[in-house]
Amino acid sequence: MTTTNKPVIIAVIGSRQPSKEDAEIAEEVGRLLARHEAILICGGLTGVMEAACRGARSVGGLTIGVLPGNDASTANPHVQIPIVTNIGYARNVIVVRSAKAIIAIGGGYGTLTEIAYALDTKVPVIGINTWSLARQGKPDTSIIMAKTARTAVQKALKLAEGK
Amino acid sequence: MTTTNKPVIIAVIGSRQPSKEDAEIAEEVGRLLARHEAILICGGLTGVMEAACRGARSVGGLTIGVLPGNDASTANPHVQIPIVTNIGYARNVIVVRSAKAIIAIGGGYGTLTEIAYALDTKVPVIGINTWSLARQGKPDTSIIMAKTARTAVQKALKLAEGK
Amino acid sequence: MTTTNKPVIIAVIGSRQPSKEDAEIAEEVGRLLARHEAILICGGLTGVMEAACRGARSVGGLTIGVLPGNDASTANPHVQIPIVTNIGYARNVIVVRSAKAIIAIGGGYGTLTEIAYALDTKVPVIGINTWSLARQGKPDTSIIMAKTARTAVQKALKLAEGK
Amino acid sequence: MTTTNKPVIIAVIGSRQPSKEDAEIAEEVGRLLARHEAILICGGLTGVMEAACRGARSVGGLTIGVLPGNDASTANPHVQIPIVTNIGYARNVIVVRSAKAIIAIGGGYGTLTEIAYALDTKVPVIGINTWSLARQGKPDTSIIMAKTARTAVQKALKLAEGK
Repeated sequence: MTTTNKPVIIAVIGSRQPSKEDAEIAEEVGRLLARHEAILICGGLTGVMEAACRGARSVGGLTIGVLPGNDASTANPHVQIPIVTNIGYARNVIVVRSAKAIIAIGGGYGTLTEIAYALDTKVPVIGINTWSLARQGKPDTSIIMAKTARTAVQKALKLAEGK
Repeated sequence: MTTTNKPVIIAVIGSRQPSKEDAEIAEEVGRLLARHEAILICGGLTGVMEAACRGARSVGGLTIGVLPGNDASTANPHVQIPIVTNIGYARNVIVVRSAKAIIAIGGGYGTLTEIAYALDTKVPVIGINTWSLARQGKPDTSIIMAKTARTAVQKALKLAEGK
Repeated sequence: MTTTNKPVIIAVIGSRQPSKEDAEIAEEVGRLLARHEAILICGGLTGVMEAACRGARSVGGLTIGVLPGNDASTANPHVQIPIVTNIGYARNVIVVRSAKAIIAIGGGYGTLTEIAYALDTKVPVIGINTWSLARQGKPDTSIIMAKTARTAVQKALKLAEGK
Repeated sequence: MTTTNKPVIIAVIGSRQPSKEDAEIAEEVGRLLARHEAILICGGLTGVMEAACRGARSVGGLTIGVLPGNDASTANPHVQIPIVTNIGYARNVIVVRSAKAIIAIGGGYGTLTEIAYALDTKVPVIGINTWSLARQGKPDTSIIMAKTARTAVQKALKLAEGK
């Protein structure tokens, strides 16, 4: 009885200093995930993480922030459930592994670690304005590119179902 | 607006192979926490963790399981939000640090690591049928002892408020 | 050929603010471990850790410091090999699991987490002036008590052999 | 006195299933690092890690393996100092942060996480036959490319000096 209808958890990852466009996309992604009753998990800090949480909370969604530091108060104000890890950037693994799919928006090297962890462990990655990869000169097409928040969320939810 | 009325998170820790009495206490603790609208966080596995989650879910509470392994399916069936850490028993730190207070029921050495992490970082610990400590022969009275689920939950919620 | 004669690794754990007596014992433990060609592993910081490293280095031993923070420069000056974890106190697990035996000297709650991790995973623990444990009123005698640095080192090396 | 002449620690990272060419390069890199009295740190397992350790040990170098699992016996036979983390792939952060420079040889997504962690925290990365990166269509040239073991080691040691 309690095992049915488990909520789907989707991660949103990206830079703490996003472009204005990426922040708007992140907020829209958060809103759409919440409207589809997905739980949003993220790194809990500012930038893309905060924008996505704000979007989700604006329509009553549930938000989880997996914090690198030692104090729940470092979470952005739109995180409902702060998970306090105190393991620094090793927490990136937890954000990725706790989700059924990842949406990466823009992003720096921290985001790249999360993309790589996800690809390494077969968690689907949807990317908007983010990294592209090549190995020994050959493009790696594992990141599923999307152009809008709507497409990214649709793809993420569909791929999450298959997990 | 989104920052008000954050839910209180309380951890329940204890053995994977509890006595029948400890399992019953854990289930009652879970139920009472949920009735007081606290979120239950635990290590997500069997024994005390499962009993507490079962209690909380039986009255509609929210349950988080911080798993040591690499797969959400290792969570007990009453965990609503599995946090997949894949960092093994180092995840004990996360269970403790994410809570405003800890209720320890029975327990082995793993539980003792969590009690020690909590005391080391000033997270209040309520204990039922659990460890007692002495340092260089002098008793350490930092664990607040309780005899019933009801008293333990009352003390935990009161101490959590002060944090 | 390279597999023979692996060095034995022994952990020394204890407080950052030891008593004068405990600091002297730690230094003597470090010296004796090095004389027996054991490698010393510790948390890499001050107090008992620094005293043990100083002792080991004074007779040319090898010292490893498993640091909680993000920077090798936080190691005490007698650490030859700083392992930079940036995972905070979760690094305690690594100190314990990398050793064949643990010598605990004095110590606070951090030390207690390490003792508990060791007992939980069957790494022998030798204790001097340290915690004593009771579970549900019954003494737990898993910590092997020693009174002098010499006895502690002898017991640790003997138990390490059996692993 | 004990603080002078600290050994330089260089990380070698790469796949567990390297091409024959990459394995030969890794072994040569290990040998050259040891000849320059650098300590080799790696993930401790097979493939590139084992080849590099074999090379280092063949000329008497010191090798450290930072293991993801729970048991020193999972290290390749050429690891002199196994660091047992039991934190899974989060241990990649430790390999990177403990080194003054990284040499990446070939590699999969796990290697990519290590490259990203290194770039994120300003640890120089030398790459041979490895990933290349672009962000939003623009090439990222942070990985310093090398074609031979000799050049890679020279660059790594030079960059390590500056740290």
